[in-house]
Amino acid sequence: MSSLVVRVGLLGCGNVGASLAQMIASNGDAIAERAGVRLEITQIAVRDVAKDRGLPANSASITDDPSSLVAASDVDLVVEVMGGIEPARTLILAALAAGKPVVTANKALLAAAGAELFAAAEAGGVDLLFEASVCGGIPLMRPLRESLAGDRILRVTGIVNGTTNYILTRMTEAGQSFADALAEAQALGFAEADPTADVEAHDAAAKAAIIASIAFGAEVTDSDVYREGITSITAADIEAARELGYVVKLLAVAEERDGKVGARVHPAMVPVQHPLASVREAFNAVFIEGEATGEVMLYGRGAGGFPTASAVLGDVIDAAKNLASGGRGATIGKLVRREMLPMEGVVSQYYLEVEAADRPGVLAVVADVFGRHEVSIESMQQRGIGEDARLIFVTHSARESDLRSTVEELRETDAVHRVGSVLRVLGSGE
Amino acid sequence: MSSLVVRVGLLGCGNVGASLAQMIASNGDAIAERAGVRLEITQIAVRDVAKDRGLPANSASITDDPSSLVAASDVDLVVEVMGGIEPARTLILAALAAGKPVVTANKALLAAAGAELFAAAEAGGVDLLFEASVCGGIPLMRPLRESLAGDRILRVTGIVNGTTNYILTRMTEAGQSFADALAEAQALGFAEADPTADVEAHDAAAKAAIIASIAFGAEVTDSDVYREGITSITAADIEAARELGYVVKLLAVAEERDGKVGARVHPAMVPVQHPLASVREAFNAVFIEGEATGEVMLYGRGAGGFPTASAVLGDVIDAAKNLASGGRGATIGKLVRREMLPMEGVVSQYYLEVEAADRPGVLAVVADVFGRHEVSIESMQQRGIGEDARLIFVTHSARESDLRSTVEELRETDAVHRVGSVLRVLGSGE
Repeated sequence: MSSLVVRVGLLGCGNVGASLAQMIASNGDAIAERAGVRLEITQIAVRDVAKDRGLPANSASITDDPSSLVAASDVDLVVEVMGGIEPARTLILAALAAGKPVVTANKALLAAAGAELFAAAEAGGVDLLFEASVCGGIPLMRPLRESLAGDRILRVTGIVNGTTNYILTRMTEAGQSFADALAEAQALGFAEADPTADVEAHDAAAKAAIIASIAFGAEVTDSDVYREGITSITAADIEAARELGYVVKLLAVAEERDGKVGARVHPAMVPVQHPLASVREAFNAVFIEGEATGEVMLYGRGAGGFPTASAVLGDVIDAAKNLASGGRGATIGKLVRREMLPMEGVVSQYYLEVEAADRPGVLAVVADVFGRHEVSIESMQQRGIGEDARLIFVTHSARESDLRSTVEELRETDAVHRVGSVLRVLGSGE
Repeated sequence: MSSLVVRVGLLGCGNVGASLAQMIASNGDAIAERAGVRLEITQIAVRDVAKDRGLPANSASITDDPSSLVAASDVDLVVEVMGGIEPARTLILAALAAGKPVVTANKALLAAAGAELFAAAEAGGVDLLFEASVCGGIPLMRPLRESLAGDRILRVTGIVNGTTNYILTRMTEAGQSFADALAEAQALGFAEADPTADVEAHDAAAKAAIIASIAFGAEVTDSDVYREGITSITAADIEAARELGYVVKLLAVAEERDGKVGARVHPAMVPVQHPLASVREAFNAVFIEGEATGEVMLYGRGAGGFPTASAVLGDVIDAAKNLASGGRGATIGKLVRREMLPMEGVVSQYYLEVEAADRPGVLAVVADVFGRHEVSIESMQQRGIGEDARLIFVTHSARESDLRSTVEELRETDAVHRVGSVLRVLGSGE
């Protein structure tokens, strides 16, 4: 098979960009043989052209002018791994307008302006691929867009942030506090010095927005995503989960309910036998429920230079082959703005910890509050703590609005001294 | 977006075919909107045209002449879900020669004659897609061929047979014997009346051949696959595994070692913390190790009408879009015949159960046998059983040939009364 040369321009050359250049250098012959396209990085745009990036010896010219790279006649295809909203957005739009396919790993940009970019790709009749933007090395966007293209996706539930999953794993397996587990994750390089983006779930929310957009063809941005982080999870919550047969995970959920699209990120109790429960340390996994396909889970490394570069390279090969054949790959089409499911309308099981006076009749009072708000109780455990009784409830599926009004009324009930942790529970009934 | 009509001819209309027809009837509008192609089943070839298949009302004509269907001017794309080698092979070759893309779910045919079919697709410049042929509803072939196209696959390890995984799960979780678990699986419809294809691992071997072919671009047929079933696994093996922190699974392994391609199917002990260990009941999962990507696992339902039909439909949409755009999707290219890794050259950890005389010095004698065959011991546990000692060994990674000669010499050693179960152990060092 004769192989056509496709000339690649690289916007940005950090960890992922340098790993990509290395992979193309080592696997280029195999790719040419299997895919019939020979990839050649001709230009690399970086901020500091003097910096040594340990790139393989090749003929790529290094520039600090990304606009000229996008417009250059020796660049057929643009890879954007620079990150951030601008100038990445403007550069990608320019490439698409010039009819050049784009592969991007830019989560923040897609979560903020995905609809605009996909519309530009549609208008230009050109590929915009982005597998690496969510969960690095896990094949996720391709299965969601292509393998499941004939099915109706009901819900996607993912562990999409490695830092928080590492912290929760250590809290679960080593009994650490949140603060200690975070410090360990920072020492090991799994967490940033400022961990806000991870532990407050901004990172996971951006991924949830992209997943919801692709799964439901809807325009969902990170500002549409309901968000709770893991900073208030205590060792006691983890222990209570363990006793009840759950593990605590930070979940990103995208779903369609009552014709509306919902996207949310929050900690939840996951049954130990659920496939997501065994996703440990910094690994990610995404659990997809399709009407016909049933349950599918995709698991792997959500970050790291080489896993992410491998995802970028898969997309580059796809786009390059389409370029060579004059065709075009799977398209996202136009994302439409749809009504969002408000958090109050979400249906879930819940875990609640209630401290109440330890005297006859109190349980009846508390149970009555649940009942009047249409929240049905699946299980209750009672433990004495000094003068008080500690009541642990797991509810059947209930509306968030009903659960919230239950908690509100419990807080105003005389016999109830304190409503402690309230956590969602991942169940089949959700 | 205006949508082009692609006319589909269906070869076979059992469970998968009927589910596919239903999915196209219910999801056709959504598919047309998202993918820009409208699918229309125009002809269905079956053996008995009189049989009621509960098909949705549509204008498809039912025929008992599959050759005429393939040649018909109102069939643009052929879906083969009839199974078996012939006439499926001849029909697919005829369709490809006529320039019609083919989507097949035929595991047996691909494992026997994949190279011939892919060569015919190449010669005709036409798509031959087969996601549904291995592990039903799990997106596997597409990630392997496309998402990981830029990476070097090192090894693929899968739980690819739902029946045996159900049986082993029941033996593990309910302490059942093999016979009881098989009977239960038969009663529940998870196992056939004649369970040979599943429990002797013929089904898994065919899947291993296809996986090895796609992962390594090599011509591997089911007769190249080393095969051991699960009929000799005892409750005692399962219990010993549990005590050592393992679960017993039937694994299909495809790997590249020393420039050779290996494919094998056999039971193995899987560490409880390995992601494959938590794949329960009739679920399937495939664990892929890529040089750059690291570890990826794909999990889901390996069988069933709708999950399999969903995989077929994903391929149909892909091929239909390529047909509409005049392009062509991911190709397999030419599978080359490569030297196969003989089973003797496989490297693995092993579990061995040895019954020996319970007297001083015997362990030294036994350990000396291991050492002289270059097999290094990772752990040993000793338990008294009456007059004898039961020694449980787990070795470090060793060559199969060395392990076999160790077992042979142990059997001839006076102090050794019996060598019991020998099982491979899935370890990071394999």
